[in-house]
Amino acid sequence: MKSRRVVIVGAGFGGLQAAQSLTDSGADVLLIDRNNYHTFVPLLYQVATGQLEPEYIAYPIRTILRRFSFLQNKPNVQFLMAEVEQIDFSAQTVETDRCVIIYDFLVLATGSRTQFLGVPGASEYAFSMRTLEEAIALRNQIFSCFEQAIQESDSSRRQQLLTFTIVGGGPTGVEMAGAFVEMLRGHLRRDYPTLLKQVRLILVQSSDRLLSDLPKKLGAYTCKRLHQLGVEVYLQTRVSLVTSESVHLQNHEVIPTATVIWTAGLEANSPPTSQEVSLAKKGKLLVHPTLQLLEQPNVYAIGDLAYIENNGKALTGVAPEALQQGVAVAGNIQRQFRGKSLKPFSYFNKGRLAIIGCYSGVGKIGAFAFTGCLAWLMWLGVHLAYLPGYRSRLLVLLTWLHTYLLGDRSVRLILSVKYINSQNRQVLPKEKLHFFPESR
Amino acid sequence: MKSRRVVIVGAGFGGLQAAQSLTDSGADVLLIDRNNYHTFVPLLYQVATGQLEPEYIAYPIRTILRRFSFLQNKPNVQFLMAEVEQIDFSAQTVETDRCVIIYDFLVLATGSRTQFLGVPGASEYAFSMRTLEEAIALRNQIFSCFEQAIQESDSSRRQQLLTFTIVGGGPTGVEMAGAFVEMLRGHLRRDYPTLLKQVRLILVQSSDRLLSDLPKKLGAYTCKRLHQLGVEVYLQTRVSLVTSESVHLQNHEVIPTATVIWTAGLEANSPPTSQEVSLAKKGKLLVHPTLQLLEQPNVYAIGDLAYIENNGKALTGVAPEALQQGVAVAGNIQRQFRGKSLKPFSYFNKGRLAIIGCYSGVGKIGAFAFTGCLAWLMWLGVHLAYLPGYRSRLLVLLTWLHTYLLGDRSVRLILSVKYINSQNRQVLPKEKLHFFPESR
Repeated sequence: MKSRRVVIVGAGFGGLQAAQSLTDSGADVLLIDRNNYHTFVPLLYQVATGQLEPEYIAYPIRTILRRFSFLQNKPNVQFLMAEVEQIDFSAQTVETDRCVIIYDFLVLATGSRTQFLGVPGASEYAFSMRTLEEAIALRNQIFSCFEQAIQESDSSRRQQLLTFTIVGGGPTGVEMAGAFVEMLRGHLRRDYPTLLKQVRLILVQSSDRLLSDLPKKLGAYTCKRLHQLGVEVYLQTRVSLVTSESVHLQNHEVIPTATVIWTAGLEANSPPTSQEVSLAKKGKLLVHPTLQLLEQPNVYAIGDLAYIENNGKALTGVAPEALQQGVAVAGNIQRQFRGKSLKPFSYFNKGRLAIIGCYSGVGKIGAFAFTGCLAWLMWLGVHLAYLPGYRSRLLVLLTWLHTYLLGDRSVRLILSVKYINSQNRQVLPKEKLHFFPESR
Repeated sequence: MKSRRVVIVGAGFGGLQAAQSLTDSGADVLLIDRNNYHTFVPLLYQVATGQLEPEYIAYPIRTILRRFSFLQNKPNVQFLMAEVEQIDFSAQTVETDRCVIIYDFLVLATGSRTQFLGVPGASEYAFSMRTLEEAIALRNQIFSCFEQAIQESDSSRRQQLLTFTIVGGGPTGVEMAGAFVEMLRGHLRRDYPTLLKQVRLILVQSSDRLLSDLPKKLGAYTCKRLHQLGVEVYLQTRVSLVTSESVHLQNHEVIPTATVIWTAGLEANSPPTSQEVSLAKKGKLLVHPTLQLLEQPNVYAIGDLAYIENNGKALTGVAPEALQQGVAVAGNIQRQFRGKSLKPFSYFNKGRLAIIGCYSGVGKIGAFAFTGCLAWLMWLGVHLAYLPGYRSRLLVLLTWLHTYLLGDRSVRLILSVKYINSQNRQVLPKEKLHFFPESR
């Protein structure tokens, strides 16, 4: 019998689902990731705003795999923690920083990374929020700004420290803005009562509405709601430059701000390959409807890495798409084992939800668009249900209840500067002041 | 009326307690710490072994202070996050990296730091465990060693990765050894079943018994219990050299080990001062029985920083000592306000507990020494009670129940290499191997 070695690169939603769907397939499966944990990316913003412990949304991959193979005598899915350095389609090898692996079938599920859209200074000074480390670094930055601001006697520098600019009006930017307001209304109000009035929260969006993947009226509702919450929303505005102390807009306005949070663009996070592959925009890999690479019948690409259309429209890169593609790719690989013809992938859209925060959200299920507290509750419920591991689910639920019933967040640690990208760190000159108001 | 500005440096057990005891004293109190959180040091080893989330044992100082001044109209205790760079007793100033503060009374409570006892290589290659960051770095190291070992085909290098050497047989070393065994018996057994038999856990102690601050028979029990748990205990053994791949003992034995955990020595973590101060051994400050510095009547030193005797014997540096000194120092400062004579500090020893792990511990209350499960339970109970914040207490309790009832630990993230001290990181040459057993 022909050997069946399936290598999956990336343990995000798509890769993990493919591995799960290949349990009991008879194939030897190897899942590779650079981390030993799966990151639940949709909740990263709650780590950055100090609501959730990082450990709640990052789950050890070995534990997840163990659950898949719970009933198996000899588990067929193995895990390798390694960085993929080169893929050679002719030799059918994946070269990592640790070892070289030969595959029969390959699933590429390496996701996306932040794209700074060529804006000067953005990659050096803006904070992105795609990994757990980046979310922790952003949390450090936010709380450090408040600690610095409370000691700052110069009012314009204090204003700069207390101005937070979010670039990008997609779901991540909107979630981040809403969660920031929740934080301001919660513990920051108590910890820094004198600073609160000075905080400016700015959301910059290039197009003429927020949440452009959703119906126009939901974007309008979101904009109105954020405005009510005190967020300054700049529509049809592009960023032209980011420095360590300001953000420059294309309309020549300069906003002094110590913190720029970049949620504006993503591009495919392709692994290096020895042979050329056909690319769509944003570096995504072109695939057949069966999810095979155009040139390589035994190589598949799924999730944010692949350019896939559904009913003539490109998929938008949300978790349900990757999950369904993980199932589809596992099915097609097993059809290839048996020499059967492959099935084209078709996406079943269960609906879309986006959370604004402060008890409001927006959603669209089928033709039905809705807003407000119902969408907010549904968002929380759906994300709770999809979290891996009952323990994480319980802890996240407890934390949310604690936050929304008592208005407090406990995760406000500023960890050491080693955690913060040194380039991003703004070193202010030492100020000589007498801390106590009265003179000697 | 004379101004009463009290500055407390360090928000450990002693400093926080002094601040709490000065609430409602009428003085303006400023608490300074380099972190914005209080670290519950006795549970750091549970972070390093992946049992507790770092956030559970680190509590925001501003939240703690808010609780102290719950009933006050205008809180008299302020917080400053800053690094102290110089103290000038003549000018009565504390210079930090942020600002200069003038004090009338000063409480030094900056604790202790790891002392490597002049062993070459120890400061570069051994992991210490005195701060939250160090505990996270050690957790990364332990789990990285297992991830590397499972891919390692060379058996001697695999053995090196799976050998963990703890230097120091005090409470921290013993706790760490026991917690490591718990981890091996729990999730590591499931995640890496093939590796488990190869793990070597070594505890090196210079004197002829463990837990030398406790009665001899408790040390003997601890040694026997650790031996039962599979720990190799080396008594009367000193370390002469630590390298990135081994530890050398003074008896010329060389143990190949990728991880050396240093719990062997502490020294006072004194802030730099413009004037000389009288020092005892290990850099501790000499103080009068009233806790005042010998030369400075308005400066106090408490906790691990100060050399204090009780009944002619030096105090050993545990949390209850620092807590009681925090109360005492607040009392004496208030006596100084009123021109009253000061009281000498006297320590009330409620007893001592040390945990071994795996349901056993040792303890001594008054003349009564006891061992086993009762001591273990008491240790957990006491530490739970002293944790700041009911939320942390609840979460730690839930986590312990989860660990001991279900035998699982969820915090096994290997965060990015930025978290690990780069000097400590051992870069192994890339190995070219075929991951799947069968050949093509």
